[in-house]
Amino acid sequence: GRWTHTAAVEEVRRREAGFVWIGLHEPDAEQIEGVAETFGLHELAVEDAVHAHQRPKLERYDNTLFMVLKTVRYVAHESPDTANEIVETGELMVFLGQDFVVTVRHGNHSGLSLVRRQLECDQERLRMGPSAVLWAISDHVVDNYLDVTEHIEQDIDETETRVFAPRSTVSAEQIYLLKREVLELRRAVQPLATPLRKLADGDTPLVPAEVRSYFRDVDDHLTTVSERVGSFDELLTTLVDATLAKITLQQNTDMRKITAWAAIISVPTMVAGIYGMNFENMPELHWKYGYPLAIGVILGICLVLYRIFRKNQWL
Amino acid sequence: GRWTHTAAVEEVRRREAGFVWIGLHEPDAEQIEGVAETFGLHELAVEDAVHAHQRPKLERYDNTLFMVLKTVRYVAHESPDTANEIVETGELMVFLGQDFVVTVRHGNHSGLSLVRRQLECDQERLRMGPSAVLWAISDHVVDNYLDVTEHIEQDIDETETRVFAPRSTVSAEQIYLLKREVLELRRAVQPLATPLRKLADGDTPLVPAEVRSYFRDVDDHLTTVSERVGSFDELLTTLVDATLAKITLQQNTDMRKITAWAAIISVPTMVAGIYGMNFENMPELHWKYGYPLAIGVILGICLVLYRIFRKNQWL
Amino acid sequence: GRWTHTAAVEEVRRREAGFVWIGLHEPDAEQIEGVAETFGLHELAVEDAVHAHQRPKLERYDNTLFMVLKTVRYVAHESPDTANEIVETGELMVFLGQDFVVTVRHGNHSGLSLVRRQLECDQERLRMGPSAVLWAISDHVVDNYLDVTEHIEQDIDETETRVFAPRSTVSAEQIYLLKREVLELRRAVQPLATPLRKLADGDTPLVPAEVRSYFRDVDDHLTTVSERVGSFDELLTTLVDATLAKITLQQNTDMRKITAWAAIISVPTMVAGIYGMNFENMPELHWKYGYPLAIGVILGICLVLYRIFRKNQWL
Amino acid sequence: GRWTHTAAVEEVRRREAGFVWIGLHEPDAEQIEGVAETFGLHELAVEDAVHAHQRPKLERYDNTLFMVLKTVRYVAHESPDTANEIVETGELMVFLGQDFVVTVRHGNHSGLSLVRRQLECDQERLRMGPSAVLWAISDHVVDNYLDVTEHIEQDIDETETRVFAPRSTVSAEQIYLLKREVLELRRAVQPLATPLRKLADGDTPLVPAEVRSYFRDVDDHLTTVSERVGSFDELLTTLVDATLAKITLQQNTDMRKITAWAAIISVPTMVAGIYGMNFENMPELHWKYGYPLAIGVILGICLVLYRIFRKNQWL
Amino acid sequence: GRWTHTAAVEEVRRREAGFVWIGLHEPDAEQIEGVAETFGLHELAVEDAVHAHQRPKLERYDNTLFMVLKTVRYVAHESPDTANEIVETGELMVFLGQDFVVTVRHGNHSGLSLVRRQLECDQERLRMGPSAVLWAISDHVVDNYLDVTEHIEQDIDETETRVFAPRSTVSAEQIYLLKREVLELRRAVQPLATPLRKLADGDTPLVPAEVRSYFRDVDDHLTTVSERVGSFDELLTTLVDATLAKITLQQNTDMRKITAWAAIISVPTMVAGIYGMNFENMPELHWKYGYPLAIGVILGICLVLYRIFRKNQWL
Repeated sequence: GRWTHTAAVEEVRRREAGFVWIGLHEPDAEQIEGVAETFGLHELAVEDAVHAHQRPKLERYDNTLFMVLKTVRYVAHESPDTANEIVETGELMVFLGQDFVVTVRHGNHSGLSLVRRQLECDQERLRMGPSAVLWAISDHVVDNYLDVTEHIEQDIDETETRVFAPRSTVSAEQIYLLKREVLELRRAVQPLATPLRKLADGDTPLVPAEVRSYFRDVDDHLTTVSERVGSFDELLTTLVDATLAKITLQQNTDMRKITAWAAIISVPTMVAGIYGMNFENMPELHWKYGYPLAIGVILGICLVLYRIFRKNQWL
Repeated sequence: GRWTHTAAVEEVRRREAGFVWIGLHEPDAEQIEGVAETFGLHELAVEDAVHAHQRPKLERYDNTLFMVLKTVRYVAHESPDTANEIVETGELMVFLGQDFVVTVRHGNHSGLSLVRRQLECDQERLRMGPSAVLWAISDHVVDNYLDVTEHIEQDIDETETRVFAPRSTVSAEQIYLLKREVLELRRAVQPLATPLRKLADGDTPLVPAEVRSYFRDVDDHLTTVSERVGSFDELLTTLVDATLAKITLQQNTDMRKITAWAAIISVPTMVAGIYGMNFENMPELHWKYGYPLAIGVILGICLVLYRIFRKNQWL
Repeated sequence: GRWTHTAAVEEVRRREAGFVWIGLHEPDAEQIEGVAETFGLHELAVEDAVHAHQRPKLERYDNTLFMVLKTVRYVAHESPDTANEIVETGELMVFLGQDFVVTVRHGNHSGLSLVRRQLECDQERLRMGPSAVLWAISDHVVDNYLDVTEHIEQDIDETETRVFAPRSTVSAEQIYLLKREVLELRRAVQPLATPLRKLADGDTPLVPAEVRSYFRDVDDHLTTVSERVGSFDELLTTLVDATLAKITLQQNTDMRKITAWAAIISVPTMVAGIYGMNFENMPELHWKYGYPLAIGVILGICLVLYRIFRKNQWL
Repeated sequence: GRWTHTAAVEEVRRREAGFVWIGLHEPDAEQIEGVAETFGLHELAVEDAVHAHQRPKLERYDNTLFMVLKTVRYVAHESPDTANEIVETGELMVFLGQDFVVTVRHGNHSGLSLVRRQLECDQERLRMGPSAVLWAISDHVVDNYLDVTEHIEQDIDETETRVFAPRSTVSAEQIYLLKREVLELRRAVQPLATPLRKLADGDTPLVPAEVRSYFRDVDDHLTTVSERVGSFDELLTTLVDATLAKITLQQNTDMRKITAWAAIISVPTMVAGIYGMNFENMPELHWKYGYPLAIGVILGICLVLYRIFRKNQWL
Repeated sequence: GRWTHTAAVEEVRRREAGFVWIGLHEPDAEQIEGVAETFGLHELAVEDAVHAHQRPKLERYDNTLFMVLKTVRYVAHESPDTANEIVETGELMVFLGQDFVVTVRHGNHSGLSLVRRQLECDQERLRMGPSAVLWAISDHVVDNYLDVTEHIEQDIDETETRVFAPRSTVSAEQIYLLKREVLELRRAVQPLATPLRKLADGDTPLVPAEVRSYFRDVDDHLTTVSERVGSFDELLTTLVDATLAKITLQQNTDMRKITAWAAIISVPTMVAGIYGMNFENMPELHWKYGYPLAIGVILGICLVLYRIFRKNQWL
């Protein structure tokens, strides 16, 4: 039959081997109560686990560790144009004891079934105890960061291409949106460095020496993510400025083109105006070929202007 | 009857249990004098408590702690447009001794009655002594920060939406105002980190071990606030630039539209100018359908221009 | 009669009580020579005291301390518009020994007579020895920083108001000037933190324990100043950008208004042009009410355009 | 015959002198397996070596060192205009043991044959053991950074020249591209500082004292590269802003020129319009030299306008 | 006769007093070989001394110190407009031993004859040994920095004045150039701090205690330079933005002026157009004073417009 968690932990303690892994999804205060009692979880940590909206951290209470991780998910969208959310965040809390792991998930995209299946196939790691679960979760979460980072890089690339396309009409909104989401991602990623470093440095007896180098590896990947997110931040700031420069340049180009045509068009109006004057004594008006000549003069001046503008690259 | 503070502290000391909590609101030098004498408060701290305009800090004098906190209040306003103050700050000073707490409030929104009521219901915490009061106050103040932060986030969201709305006329003033208020909030929030960390690290015998982890929890929340305020700062800087890019882009779009219409309108003027010339020998003028033909030609050219501009997305 | 400084110091040393305070204003090498010899001041410090243009610092030579402080003065001006200097800096050097203080002032606004008078009334502090003088001077200088900071805050407020006033013509020059002066203030303020912290931490036997907490207090005020100067810096950067956005927005508004009127005016010209054509066969020309009709049509189109522009908020 | 790596390492261990250097290029898991087993390489390091996309780092596993370096190559292009990649990165992993070096290369431009040849000629260094190989590789990689840095400096110089050339049409795209590539270079360069410093500080017995000062030298060169890359970063940010200012200034200049010509051209149209009015009683129309006079007036006004604009530097 | 360096050093060692100072200018490998051998200089340091392009640093090899300093020279130019180099850098290497100093100069402006003459007059300092030479050189170099800094400050002041002059045409190029040169200066100045601090802290027995406080003094001056260079950096960034705002504002002002005139000129054209229509029935055309009236109306409207624009400060 199914085990109650109390029964499970008793069985484990009787056998003096193995550990219990209990997974909860957005539990309310009552649901977590029993678990907290069974495993002796600290009141403050339990409160954090219920309310969510925590930042990544690692806390140590007597003989349990409490770790909070932010999970992120890339929200697929057809183009950066149409999106208004790119990074969705969730939360994952882990209580780690000598012979148990309790995971609490918040948000929809933080499923751990994959992690669990992979771990169950890897007896060697499972034998390292509950901290192997903590490692597998951290690794999974940081791998997700890397994924999201790559998607965002593609979005930035696409936005770049669009910004600098010859006749583009990219507004600054997309870049601003990317910036906002990159900042959100950064807020999820960066604070995790300290917890991981503590775990890698073997701050606690709950993490055996052999597991530590795995955490060091995760920390390494996190640093990679962190650095890339950092460059996104800088790139996007420059991209806003470059977009502005591009729009201004385009405006200048447009203005020149417009003005060149305006100048060309103003010539016939001016010449026609002159021959529309009502002076009695205007000899040209009586010439036989006065009219075609006037038209010819107009076309001639227009052509000359056109060539001049062409040469100055205004047209 | 009511206790004088001297009587109260004597009673407490006689019983060797409990503590005294004295609350003052914007006291002048005289009012605080007696209290300072009774509890042996240090001259410099007392001066700070009277004059206010201190930054958040924690100081230790022999056997009292002196802590300054900035309280903040979100000033409700209909829209970011109409506001000129978003964050109002006040001050809260706490003297903490073995058997007493003296709180001094400056500003109108720093009431502690709620904190007092909640504490009085929580006998377990009250039994931890005066430092529980310090904790409850810190927690209350930092929770307020979180509230204000959320309100400001909404303001920023609203401003974003308005900036990027298709035909918006958002001026940079609102963003600048938000920036200024965010900087003020940051000045209240960030310096509190050091005091809280000291309290959590058990720098002093006045804070028993069991209370320390509560301060660690408050410090955690403060870090969350701090990080969010930090991103507001960066976001608003980018928002100013994005607004500029948006206005410039709009100007370009407007200029194109304007110019396209100007070009279209200049055609009839030009053609009409030509047929307004007074040459004797202009055959078209004598054609029976010269006039409707001319009008037709004018409309035709206008239509062609209109289509060209449409295709180039100038119209 | 008046004391020579040698006599004074001998008297003090004979009595084994009190101390000598010697004040110099912009002394040349010769003037300071005698003093330096009497009190055994270090050659390098003396050189610094003569040449000025030092940054705030605290140096320790055997049994004297040498401290440099920057004094600042707010240069009153009618409006930020007309100023070209807002912060004037001077220098104050203090040599501190077991039984003497030598102060050297550079610049016109660093008078210490006020400090001296206040100290002479405060026997308790005077009894703490020469370091009380150093404290009184530091306190005075930092209080001045606070004053100047408040004045600059007012200038920034005023500039803000002017920048965002509906029809303002604020140039970026004022903001740039404020920025430059804020940077100068920062250069005076920030380096003082290290010296003050050293004095507060009791790095030296010349400063007795009871005086240290006073230095801690001064350091506190300095941090307040430092933080505010820091936000000025950031605010002004944002203000420049916001000003740019404001000017650009105004330009766009102006352009729309201008263009709308241009469009309205181009209609009569166009219509008039058409009826100015010389075709033989233009029936409207022969209508009895052709002319008033044409004028009517012109006015009608103009009115419609006016309403359209009004609705689009171009006018 | 050729040695298998197992035979080679056995031979070396038998002789108790020399060391084995094995070079692999983008090996798959299988290819590296045998090597890993022979030399007892750590599973995590081996995984990193296969998958690449690591950041520069130095890790220590029992008695091997694992170092990752990023190699960079300057992608030649005719002008910054036509490029879309300037810096290409590869990876180089080094396993260092008591008597072996295993190098794993990723990317096409990370060849080490030159390093090997140079080392083989330098018996003195070879005698220092495997760490001399690690040094030679680091030195080679950092020298490449320096090369690339110099090429990029030339690109920046060229872009500068083009941006500020009188009639240039430099778009912001090139500057943005340079910025992006500089950020990529920075991501390769900066994280290498920590590993090199560790090697120079003699963190490990695998690097004998005599080799350490060589690593210090490499670290020095790296710092030079790092500082230059850092100034590129800042320079390019300023360059974007300066470009914007330049375009805006040019637009202003163009607008003035255009407007000046528009004003000059509007004069004949206006005057002609007036003499095109059909009033019965317009004496000028009947003057004998009315027409040439009108033309003269027109030319005169145009000339005066031209001179005025010339004087104000609008033309 | 003249001494060979070998003879010189032998003489010095025999006498057990004094020291040898050898100065080289851009030596090639051969020239430095003999010197290196005589004094036992380390191979890596010698290589650095030959190749130049080092960053400021201090290295310690057994019983010699090797220090690299960047020398700077302000390149005089008539105005920031015409310059394209403002700061020229050179290099100065110093080998310091128990009884010798070897100086290697790169670049043309790093002459040390002045330093040598001054030192030769100051027997007291000479007696402190070779480290006094190192001090004199550092002092000389840092004094040069200060000089250059003051020149650059003047350039910035001049550029400011020009940017904000009412009818200026300052391009962003000058500001960008100043920024670039300031960054170069910073790269020379900042890395020198660590070496100087090490020398002041007495990291090495080669520098006797009495010389250390002199190095502390030099370090102080360097910090002053560093801070000023840092504010230049910030100031110039703001200046670029302020320039942009200024140009944009001027463009707006120009546009208003231009448009106002365009509006005024469009009135005669429009009115003339109307009276140029060929309607049969236009009573005004037959009025005796129709023409002057029309002209009057035109002038009247123009005047009204002129006044309105004047009042709105468009003209």
